[in-house]
Parts: sequence; structure tokens; C-alpha cells
Amino acid sequence: MFESAELEHAIDKARFEEELPKLRTELLDAQFDLIESKQFPVILIVAGMEGTGVIDALTSAHKVLDARHVVTFALDTPTPEEAERPRMWRFWRVLPPKGEIGIYVGSWYSAPLTNRVLDKTSDAQFEQQLDAIKRFETMLATEGALILKFWLHLSKDDQKKRLKKLKKSERTRWRIEESPWGGSKRYREVKTAAEHMMRITGTDQAPWIPVNAANNYYRSLTVGKTILNAIRSRLEQPQTTEAPPVAAPVGTPDIDQTTLLSTLDLTLNLEKDDYKKQLSHYQNRLNELVWSKKFKKRSLVLVFEGNDAAGKGGSIRRLIEFLDPRRYRVNQFAAPSDEEKAQPYLWRFWRRLPRRGHIAIFDRSWYGRVLVERVEGFCAEADWRRAYNEINDFEKEMTEAGSIVIKFWLTIDKDEQERRFKARGETGYKRYKITDEDWRNREKWGEYAEAVCDLIDLTSTSVAPWVLVEANDKYHARVKVLKTVCEQIEKSL
Amino acid sequence: MFESAELEHAIDKARFEEELPKLRTELLDAQFDLIESKQFPVILIVAGMEGTGVIDALTSAHKVLDARHVVTFALDTPTPEEAERPRMWRFWRVLPPKGEIGIYVGSWYSAPLTNRVLDKTSDAQFEQQLDAIKRFETMLATEGALILKFWLHLSKDDQKKRLKKLKKSERTRWRIEESPWGGSKRYREVKTAAEHMMRITGTDQAPWIPVNAANNYYRSLTVGKTILNAIRSRLEQPQTTEAPPVAAPVGTPDIDQTTLLSTLDLTLNLEKDDYKKQLSHYQNRLNELVWSKKFKKRSLVLVFEGNDAAGKGGSIRRLIEFLDPRRYRVNQFAAPSDEEKAQPYLWRFWRRLPRRGHIAIFDRSWYGRVLVERVEGFCAEADWRRAYNEINDFEKEMTEAGSIVIKFWLTIDKDEQERRFKARGETGYKRYKITDEDWRNREKWGEYAEAVCDLIDLTSTSVAPWVLVEANDKYHARVKVLKTVCEQIEKSL
Repeated sequence: MFESAELEHAIDKARFEEELPKLRTELLDAQFDLIESKQFPVILIVAGMEGTGVIDALTSAHKVLDARHVVTFALDTPTPEEAERPRMWRFWRVLPPKGEIGIYVGSWYSAPLTNRVLDKTSDAQFEQQLDAIKRFETMLATEGALILKFWLHLSKDDQKKRLKKLKKSERTRWRIEESPWGGSKRYREVKTAAEHMMRITGTDQAPWIPVNAANNYYRSLTVGKTILNAIRSRLEQPQTTEAPPVAAPVGTPDIDQTTLLSTLDLTLNLEKDDYKKQLSHYQNRLNELVWSKKFKKRSLVLVFEGNDAAGKGGSIRRLIEFLDPRRYRVNQFAAPSDEEKAQPYLWRFWRRLPRRGHIAIFDRSWYGRVLVERVEGFCAEADWRRAYNEINDFEKEMTEAGSIVIKFWLTIDKDEQERRFKARGETGYKRYKITDEDWRNREKWGEYAEAVCDLIDLTSTSVAPWVLVEANDKYHARVKVLKTVCEQIEKSL
Repeated sequence: MFESAELEHAIDKARFEEELPKLRTELLDAQFDLIESKQFPVILIVAGMEGTGVIDALTSAHKVLDARHVVTFALDTPTPEEAERPRMWRFWRVLPPKGEIGIYVGSWYSAPLTNRVLDKTSDAQFEQQLDAIKRFETMLATEGALILKFWLHLSKDDQKKRLKKLKKSERTRWRIEESPWGGSKRYREVKTAAEHMMRITGTDQAPWIPVNAANNYYRSLTVGKTILNAIRSRLEQPQTTEAPPVAAPVGTPDIDQTTLLSTLDLTLNLEKDDYKKQLSHYQNRLNELVWSKKFKKRSLVLVFEGNDAAGKGGSIRRLIEFLDPRRYRVNQFAAPSDEEKAQPYLWRFWRRLPRRGHIAIFDRSWYGRVLVERVEGFCAEADWRRAYNEINDFEKEMTEAGSIVIKFWLTIDKDEQERRFKARGETGYKRYKITDEDWRNREKWGEYAEAVCDLIDLTSTSVAPWVLVEANDKYHARVKVLKTVCEQIEKSL
């Protein structure tokens, strides 16, 4: 895998200085077109052997690009705000928007690679991590990102020479001292792990480009030209609106009309007295749980989805009624802002993930992609189809970071919905007003039901389960929600 | 000041439960109209004597509002990300956008008040802090925010009773233990300091509302109705487009055409050899300074403004040429995003303030308000007139937090600009293209010059000075910028 990257390259200063101005001009022009077009973000990952000058490469990249549209991310110790959220949160918060370039020195590869080199993880664990990264990058690429990953390579001899030189100067010595791999001692381990990494995560959409870094001039010109060619060729590609072909339909055909939803017993109900007693009981219990010491190390993510007028708002209100408002935030999503539109679909939800000890409630959520966007055709079929896996990965990130994730689907039947719509029409409260759109959505009842069954089949996991709530009776629904939350927290702590 | 707030109020549970549903409906309707209109943000500050149930008040507020459009901010220990930036940064990051409600339990008042109560600050220092707060709130209000500040009050006897009750229950005892003022011991000090605070910072635009909190029912109804009335009355006010009257013109009349700009010696220049030598010298020096231990505790904010084609970009490029890209970010501002438009003018600049040890470079900046927006009439006269003070406050925040702030004005004369425009027209580099707008701006040369002289007179402070750079000769300009940066850092460390 490193055969080409170990070939010797003799680019001298003269040749470099001759070629640089042209490259620089072309790169700036390409970047200018990218900024103007706002078509896609560029994500550059720079990693490599010790002594290859990853930082120098970064500095040269900055020198030839318009720094006003470049964001650099260097892996540092995570701040508490970062450490208290899923592992990938810190990367999401610095993703470049469309038109901009993000350079990552230290990236999602750093920890997996270092842990493998130091033998803190097994090959199998390493592979699992790489697989997750691959899925993440595929998602970014499918959302439009241009991803290039440079591996700066050195032969063992070249590395020794390099490190010796770095050690000599006071100004560069720290680079080796701070290095997690301990200089050239682990050359073989690094090479093996890197090879593994590149094999698994090098894809057409996010290729690894090994570059011989023994010669700085060669390194700079190669990296620069690769970036230039990639941006140019992407800019020149026709903006396809045609969706890629998709596989067979999701879910199984509904042969006997027996679905997850049709088997729910919507007659379940609670008497008012019983309701009041249970509500108060679970509200107190929830309060205690949230104040418990163990919860301080966890967090809670609650997703509420359901038919229009199924009572999501009312359930949420009962849930938070006695909670300390400093601990939770209820999130609702209108049309995305333009900052959100310039990012991958999931970005605006990542922004709202809770810190440890906190609760994030989502009144409608990322499932919009596979519900309203699917049914109304707001996104391409390929887009909502890939969303199931992306969502599963997203929720796995949360649970791995200690979040307790529970998702509620509140179901009412068509008659009950009609009753509620009509009642709302009569209240006169503006906030309850029923729009034509609400009535229109009813006409697609069947399509929504199908989408719901698919999403439950495809995204109900043991770590982030869907809870179906029979919501024709509001009392029953509210208590079931509260009770489930309490029980799940208890189980998890 | 607390006379009314010490009157006894006898609202019983029956009356409360009778009035609450109506209040709740009206508040929700008002909030709905606010959300729909997106006219202004609502900022609610809740503070008060110990034992007044500030948290309870918060919880009740949440209960009667639509929590999906309320953001709560509770003062916690600042996270490192917050602690490494100006004091007010943590508040700016949670300001509610237009249409939303922000509730602050623990606010910009908390630290000043507590420090005064504990006698850690003098009356004079306290007053100075209050004055800064007043200016901040005036700015928010002028930008459209509806600000209400509740002081929950208790007489001394009532407080004793309250605290005794709180101590009894395990669930409330922590509130007293965590209290910085030590229960009722400092009743007099708290009362005196609060009175002082309310006197200085209570304005028409951001009034303090003292509320007797001895009776929870009375407290909740009063706070709720006050909020309702304020939102309603603001929503009903006609949206005035007429600017408020302004005072006499800024600056002194230009009687003999001797201005700050006209006295600059634009013939200053450097020979190429000398330039190369000095450039390299100061680039190295800057690199050393930025790597120094002392700089880790500081940060650097550089503002670049100047005539079109004055060479800002080139100067910035030389400045960062050898800096570690992980340490700096170059910021440029296009049209504000819709998230930025829903916030006060300075919000998008606050977002970009650097952490400790880092450098933020602004290629054009908040001075756009008093330059292009003033000259082109993009904002009302009253808006750019108040901006000078707002900017001074903003920069003072930075320097007080340890930032080194330097602002460069790059000046070229009209002939030189024409030469550069024409040369650019010939290069063919798209990024250098000169638009009709650039030529149009030239026609307002005089107006811009006037605006520049005003801004320098009004915003050049000893802590955040303007440096005028003679930029007809690029070599001279670049070296002067670099040299100044080095010298100012040296002086500050």
C-alpha cells in the first residue's frame, strides 16, 4: 500500500519555486469558484508518520489558500463541553459549511489509530471503529462533501533522519516529545495500523492518498495539486438532480393488514382519579431520578413523534411539569436556517445534544427525514433510504456516550384525529389552529402508516427502542410515557 | 424602593386556581403571536432574596409557557470555553433570537451583586459594573429586545420563616447550602446592594420589577401578568420605521481640510531588500511571541479595515505566513445569516472571539456599522451613532479578559486606488475582479474619509488603539503592521 509512497522523489527548490506561483494561483481561483458556488464543503484530513511534518503541510496549505474560508481543526484534549457529549460532537461542531474548506490535523482517525498502535485495542475493535468512521464519511460524502485524506509517509530510514533533525532544534523538539507514538520506535506498528486503516476506510468517496513526505517540496506540490484537481473536477461535474438507483422497497409487503400499528389496543384508557395518582407518582419519581448522583454522569434524549394531534405537546408538558428547567431543553424544528442548510442533514440535531446530567426533548426530530420528507417527496428516495442507517449510527453515538435514548410514537386512529381537529377548530386558541395542511396530511394516512412501520422496524434498537403509545386516551398516553421514562432510567442507572 | 414589595398580599389557593387557567391561555396566545411575528426577543431576568424561590418562579414560568420556545440560562461555574473568553461571552451565546424567550436565573447581575454583598468590591467598583450592565441592556433594548427584570423580595421576618422551612426538607436544603450569601445573615447587605443595583440599572427600557414573594400565589400571578402585559403591549405597538432624533453631528467640522488622514505621509516606502529582511525578522519574532508561555494566558484580536484595494488581504497573508494555523482564524463577514439577523448586531462578532492562546483576525469587522452602513444608509442614523459607544464597550470587554486588541486602518490615496483597480481588472484572476460597486464606492471617497476620521476619533482608546498605516507602498504597510503587532504584544506580555 505504501509502495509508491516510498519511491524517492527529487524535486529541488528551483523546481518548487518555479511551480509554486502557478499552483497557488490556480488553487486560489478554484477556491474562489468554490466559495461563489457554495456547492459543497471540502474536508481535508492530514495524518501521517511521525516526523512527516503534518503541521508544516497544514501551514503550507494555509499559505496557498484564502485563509478566510478555511477552518482548521487540531485535535486537542477535549474541553468538558466536548467530553460530556458523544465522541463525534466535537467534529460536527467544526464541520465546514458548503463553500468552505475544513482541514483536520488530528481527526476522527487519531484516537483509533493511536490506541491500536499502543495495543490498547485489538484488531477487531480497531476494525469496528474504522467501520463506523467509514459509515460517517460515506454519509458526509453522500450529503455532498468532497473528502480527501492524506497520509504523509516516510520510509524507516527517512523517518530516523527526520526525527534526528527535529530533535536538534529547540523549536521543533516538542513535536517529538508530545508525540503519542514515541518517535520511530513503533514504526512497524504504525505502518501496519495505517495500512489497515487505509484499506478499510479508503473509498471512492473518501480516498486515502499516501504521499511520500521525505522531500518537502514534493510533498507540498503533490498535496496542493491533488486538492486542486479534486476541487476543479468536482466543480465541473454537472450538478445532478437525478437520484441514484435504489434497492427493493423497505419493509415487507402488508399482505393481511396486520401491522405494528393495527395491533395496538387503542381502547386502553385510565380513569381521571387513577390518572392523577399515577401522574403525580411518576412525576415525583422522575424528579428524584434526575436529581440522583448517578444521573449526573448520564444524559437523557427523548424523541416524540406521532400523528398530528396525537398529544405530543401535552405529554411533554406533563413530563417536564416538575422538572428543574435548568436541566432540560425542549427542541422543536421549523424550516432549517441557512446555516443549517449549508450542513449535512443531521447537523442541526447534533447541535442540540445534551451535556451530562441534562435532558434534551425533541418534539419531532431527525425522523422527519423518513416521515414527512419521505411521504411528501421533500427529499430523494435515495436520501431517505440511507437515513435509517445514518440515524442508527447517530443514536449509537449517543448511547455509547452514556445517553439514555427513548423514542415515543403516539398513535391515534383516524376518527379520533378528526374529533380532535374539529375540537381544535372550535377553541379559538390560535396556537391550536388547524391548517389546511393538517387536513391534507390526513389524506396520506396510509402512506404515513407505512412509513411509520418501516421506521420502527428499521430503527428500533435495543439501545434506542421505540415505544408505541396508544394515545386515543390522553390519560393513558401521558402516564405510559412518564412511566416508561422512569423505568428506562432506572434500568440504565 | 421595596415599600410596595413589602406589603402583605393575601391571595389564596382558590383565587389562584381560578385565575391561573385564564392567565395561562392568554400567555400562550401572546407567546404564539410573538413566535409568529418574530419581531423581538424577550429577556427575563429573575433574581431575588434568598428563600424567595427563584427556581420555583422559573419552574412556574416554564409551566405556563410553550417550553419549545424558551431558553433557560442558569449561572453555573463557567466552562473553560467560557472562562477563556470575555465575561459576557457566555451570556451572548445564549441570547434568545427574535420570537423566543430567554429566562436568566443567574445573569450578568449575579457576580457583581454577590461580590458587593460579600464586600469583595467597593461601592465605586460596584457602580462601575452596574453602569456597564446598563449600557449593555440599553444596547439590547435598542436592538429591539423586551427586557423585564424581576426582583423577588421578602421582608426580614418572612425570609426567616422561609429559610427555616427550606432547611427542614431534604429536598430543598441544598438551596440554602449552595447559597453564596449565607442565608438571612446578610439581609441588610443584600437589601442595600439590591436597592443600589435597581436604582442604577432600572431604566424605561429594562425596568426592575420588585415583587413580594412571601405569597407564592401572589408571586406567580404577578410575574405572569407582568410578562403578559409587556409582550402584549409591545406586540400592539406600531412597528416604527422612523428613527429617533439624533444629536448634533459626530466629529468637528473640517474647516481647513486637515484631517487625520490628510496628514499621513503616503510616500513612506521600503526597498525590496530591506522589506525582505524586516519581514522575515518580524515574522520570526511574532512566531516566538505566540509560542511564549505568557501568551498562553492572553489572546490577540486584530482588526483590518481600510480603503478598497488598500492591501488588507496581503498584509494578513504576510502576518500569518509562518504562524501555526491551529492558533489563528481569519474571519470575513458576508451578508449575515438568518440566525445572525435574529440577534443584535454585534452577535456575529462575539461568536468569533478567540480562546486564550489564540488569535482572531478580522478582515473587515464590526466597524462596518459606522463605515459602509453609515455611508450607504444601510442602517438608521441613530443606529450607527450609538454604535461607537457599543463598540468601545465591546472592545473593553475583550481587553479586560486579557485580549490584546489592535486595529489597523490601511490608507491609500485615490490615485493609487485607481491604479490598483485597473491593474486588477487586467489580471484575470476572478478573485480580484473589480465590480461596479467598487467603482461606485470611490465616488463617495469624501464621505468615507469623514466616517473614518470619526471612527478613529471616537473608538481609538488606549487599550484598543487604531494604527493608521500608510499603504501606498505595500512593503511599508506590511512591515508596519507586523512590527506593530510584535511591539504591542511585547508591551502587553
